[in-house]
Amino acid sequence: MAVYTDVSDEEIASFVAAYDIGALLSCKGIAEGVENTNYMLHTEGGQFILTLYEKRVDEADLPYFLGLMEHLARGGITCPQPVHGRDGAVLRRLAGRPAALIEFLEGMSVRRPRMDHCRALGAMLARLHLAGVDYPGHRTNALSVAGWRQIFEAARDSADGVAPGLAADMAGELDQFERHWPTGLPEGVIHADLFPDNVFFIGERLSGLIDFYFACNDAFAYDVAICLNAWCFEADLSFNVTKARALMTGYAGVRPFSEAEIAALPILARGAAMRFLVTRLYDWLNTPAGALVRPKDPVEYLRRLRFHRSVTSAAQYGLDG
Amino acid sequence: MAVYTDVSDEEIASFVAAYDIGALLSCKGIAEGVENTNYMLHTEGGQFILTLYEKRVDEADLPYFLGLMEHLARGGITCPQPVHGRDGAVLRRLAGRPAALIEFLEGMSVRRPRMDHCRALGAMLARLHLAGVDYPGHRTNALSVAGWRQIFEAARDSADGVAPGLAADMAGELDQFERHWPTGLPEGVIHADLFPDNVFFIGERLSGLIDFYFACNDAFAYDVAICLNAWCFEADLSFNVTKARALMTGYAGVRPFSEAEIAALPILARGAAMRFLVTRLYDWLNTPAGALVRPKDPVEYLRRLRFHRSVTSAAQYGLDG
Repeated sequence: MAVYTDVSDEEIASFVAAYDIGALLSCKGIAEGVENTNYMLHTEGGQFILTLYEKRVDEADLPYFLGLMEHLARGGITCPQPVHGRDGAVLRRLAGRPAALIEFLEGMSVRRPRMDHCRALGAMLARLHLAGVDYPGHRTNALSVAGWRQIFEAARDSADGVAPGLAADMAGELDQFERHWPTGLPEGVIHADLFPDNVFFIGERLSGLIDFYFACNDAFAYDVAICLNAWCFEADLSFNVTKARALMTGYAGVRPFSEAEIAALPILARGAAMRFLVTRLYDWLNTPAGALVRPKDPVEYLRRLRFHRSVTSAAQYGLDG
Repeated sequence: MAVYTDVSDEEIASFVAAYDIGALLSCKGIAEGVENTNYMLHTEGGQFILTLYEKRVDEADLPYFLGLMEHLARGGITCPQPVHGRDGAVLRRLAGRPAALIEFLEGMSVRRPRMDHCRALGAMLARLHLAGVDYPGHRTNALSVAGWRQIFEAARDSADGVAPGLAADMAGELDQFERHWPTGLPEGVIHADLFPDNVFFIGERLSGLIDFYFACNDAFAYDVAICLNAWCFEADLSFNVTKARALMTGYAGVRPFSEAEIAALPILARGAAMRFLVTRLYDWLNTPAGALVRPKDPVEYLRRLRFHRSVTSAAQYGLDG
């Protein structure tokens, strides 16, 4: 949680003047978003999130992300919508950074997802995959196997200081992924970061999805595997197969899994754990002591990875057959 | 800027249920407030700030602060209003801390106040002083001369590491204040922290005041002296007498200064600089490296103090006569 870029009242007022949303009434930096700076804006025209894209986001990818949010909304997925300026543009610059104004989306993320949340999430993820099928943009997943290797090599020498034997363990896993990572699975646009933080509920109803800044083109089942990691482990890191079954059946009710997807699920789930293990490890080793954002513990994902390594069939994720 | 206390969605929903404000729609931690944790809440009933009072605020003082905000509003001062629960109470507990729900107040603080802002601020400060005259609460100013001495003694041994000679300089000043601090000036409720952060404007109009958590009973002219320090120095720490004149004449147009107040202004301004110098020095020395809030540089207030020490008459603050 952080406001990385401080913007003066004059800069924000002149930014807002590029849009047809009335005068600025208030602006508060919000303590969310690990990657970007977000302000909550009220104007005479409504409520908005002003996002300044920080250096971790590649500016060249922004049209893919913002275009996707609009495309998905046309396909019936509730997600934040970029506001077009008087000049038609959704991207402009503020305080030296790319910036966009996004309509505010109401909703609360759940801290401890229950079974019903997991079922709703599964169904919405499948709807997202279907709605993205005809999205013309394409973005390669930079955080797939080759990306993990690269980040791991930068962190390798210090990894054993985080957990004994971690470097060898991860190196062995990466070798496996490089040899056995599944190909040819059904693919399209995936969210790639659909943690509970990024899913809104109002009461019991799933009201919307946010934060599309890791979206890319990859296997749909890999997105499911990310969600299994993010939604179906308890605080003590035990795997809750009841929640997993709810997520999987919620998904399959909208978009049935192929045989190949079911067979690939254990390695995809193990890879999804590696994806967060490797980035968290890197951040853990490279975040300066006084940083605004405290790095998240990578070891949680090592434990998830070990669970998935023990899985021999997709039945253990609650899938029948 | 910080969210010190993390509150779960369930805790917030059950907190909100104590009020007649409809269901919760969204909740974002906001990156403001050095002392407390603030969330911005949307419910079916409107927009609110949920404040959790952290350990620097004495719980016993909260009824004074919250009652004052309601009293001032009845006297025509626009400031955030605590919301009463169904049980009538404005203070309750959340996540182990005292907490209150406050109506959201629109407005933007100005980063670089101009002369017109200073004039409006002066007039509003005088209106606040008049509106507080019949407030029945009383709170001694814990951050006056005796308080400065106590904080200084806790920081003294390390002060010279911040600026050479600082310990001796501050000790000499404190001796002076202890001997010559003015008494018998007109007094009542003062805001005591009316920095530009705490004053909202919508366009050119001063739209409200916030953050009454340092309010106390003390000399009105001392509150003016705090504002001279907070509003009338440029970024290079030069004193802008034009802004000071605007602030002083704005104030005097609503509540004329007495002769004694005018005579006391230089020492009050020097003392106001000491008040922020001493707390910033303490925080500078006692904030751990990884803290969420970065301490502010105390030396800025040493330079202000030295300016006020050079002042021989209130005319140098732009007051005629």
